[in-house]
Amino acid sequence: MHRKYTRHADREESTAGGSPTLDKISEFTVRRLSTYYRILFQLEQKGETTVSSARLAELCGVTSAQVRKDLSYFGNFGTRGLGYQVDDLKHAIAGILGLHEQWTMALFGAGSLGHALFFHDGFRDDGFYFTHVFDVDPMKIGKKWRGIEIRPVSAARSVLSETPVQIGVVATPEDSAQEVADMLAELGVQGILNFAPRQIQVPNNVRLRNVNLAMALESLSFFLSS
Amino acid sequence: MHRKYTRHADREESTAGGSPTLDKISEFTVRRLSTYYRILFQLEQKGETTVSSARLAELCGVTSAQVRKDLSYFGNFGTRGLGYQVDDLKHAIAGILGLHEQWTMALFGAGSLGHALFFHDGFRDDGFYFTHVFDVDPMKIGKKWRGIEIRPVSAARSVLSETPVQIGVVATPEDSAQEVADMLAELGVQGILNFAPRQIQVPNNVRLRNVNLAMALESLSFFLSS
Repeated sequence: MHRKYTRHADREESTAGGSPTLDKISEFTVRRLSTYYRILFQLEQKGETTVSSARLAELCGVTSAQVRKDLSYFGNFGTRGLGYQVDDLKHAIAGILGLHEQWTMALFGAGSLGHALFFHDGFRDDGFYFTHVFDVDPMKIGKKWRGIEIRPVSAARSVLSETPVQIGVVATPEDSAQEVADMLAELGVQGILNFAPRQIQVPNNVRLRNVNLAMALESLSFFLSS
Repeated sequence: MHRKYTRHADREESTAGGSPTLDKISEFTVRRLSTYYRILFQLEQKGETTVSSARLAELCGVTSAQVRKDLSYFGNFGTRGLGYQVDDLKHAIAGILGLHEQWTMALFGAGSLGHALFFHDGFRDDGFYFTHVFDVDPMKIGKKWRGIEIRPVSAARSVLSETPVQIGVVATPEDSAQEVADMLAELGVQGILNFAPRQIQVPNNVRLRNVNLAMALESLSFFLSS
């Protein structure tokens, strides 16, 4: 019964129906889907089986019109007057977000941020696995994290040619970020998650997400400033 | 000339005009403001002095209607047919986000994530300063980061009573996050930024932001999955 929620079907439906195609769906829509997913996960843990769009909206800090609009891109969810089945919707959103697949990642930068990312269990819970770690620091090269050896960045090209990854995670100093991104793009990596505090350029066929740690603080200061 | 963009004025205008009040402005709106701010910053660095809502929207990955709507909450920006003045709008958004103020923060958890956050220069550029660091690990307590001594969590209550902070940053293991949040709320901290991978509860008078590092990856996997 989840089959109709798969992304292939949605893509076809969207195109056929004139709805926004995947490429037109903004990062903000996807971020809201991630939020819905987490809230549904929590509701499920509390034993709740159904949720109205109004309640889901309230828990996520958006309007219920927004919830309905976001979900309408991907199919028909919920029943008028009855709301959504928590487990079905959670499962469907996980599928939409690609969390039913497994993703391999190469980490560049084994500093404190890289270390925090590598050992962040939330990634593995979602199906994201670091399979390689690269750094330039001779003190770090050769060490092992969870059995994975930290290798020199200079070896990355040959290593990743032989055992490719889908996603590159850039946690280098900002000076090196563009160079790493260029290499990853050449090697055919599909997506780059950039934590370096600088804007990097990638070709159109590579998806880039910049994580700016200051943005969450700005969201606080907005509401706190008087 | 920037005075009319201050949040005080906006708040009064919003209330008077029946526009959304600050409390109704969602975290997503604020996140977009942060994105506009960064893009404007980059445009300014490239020497561009004006930008249309269409161009700004494209660079930020949203619709131009969204840009105009987001900015309309806070006043009248831009000139029809001419677009926005980059420096004025950047300055105005910085004011809206509270970045013209200085914010003090206490960090809980001096592990790899805490270390990465403490030494993240982007925070200080925005006016966010760590003034205290707390941990439970005897190996870390007593060490100094940029002149700030890592102190035991058990001392936090008395230390923060004497020298309060506005924001608490929680980078502890998930088991300790709620306890730290409870103490911070009791001490009158206004905002909490939680990096621990669990949902924490705070009283209504405390603003909470959860940073989930997996969400950026989900945004990639959404677009990469086929």
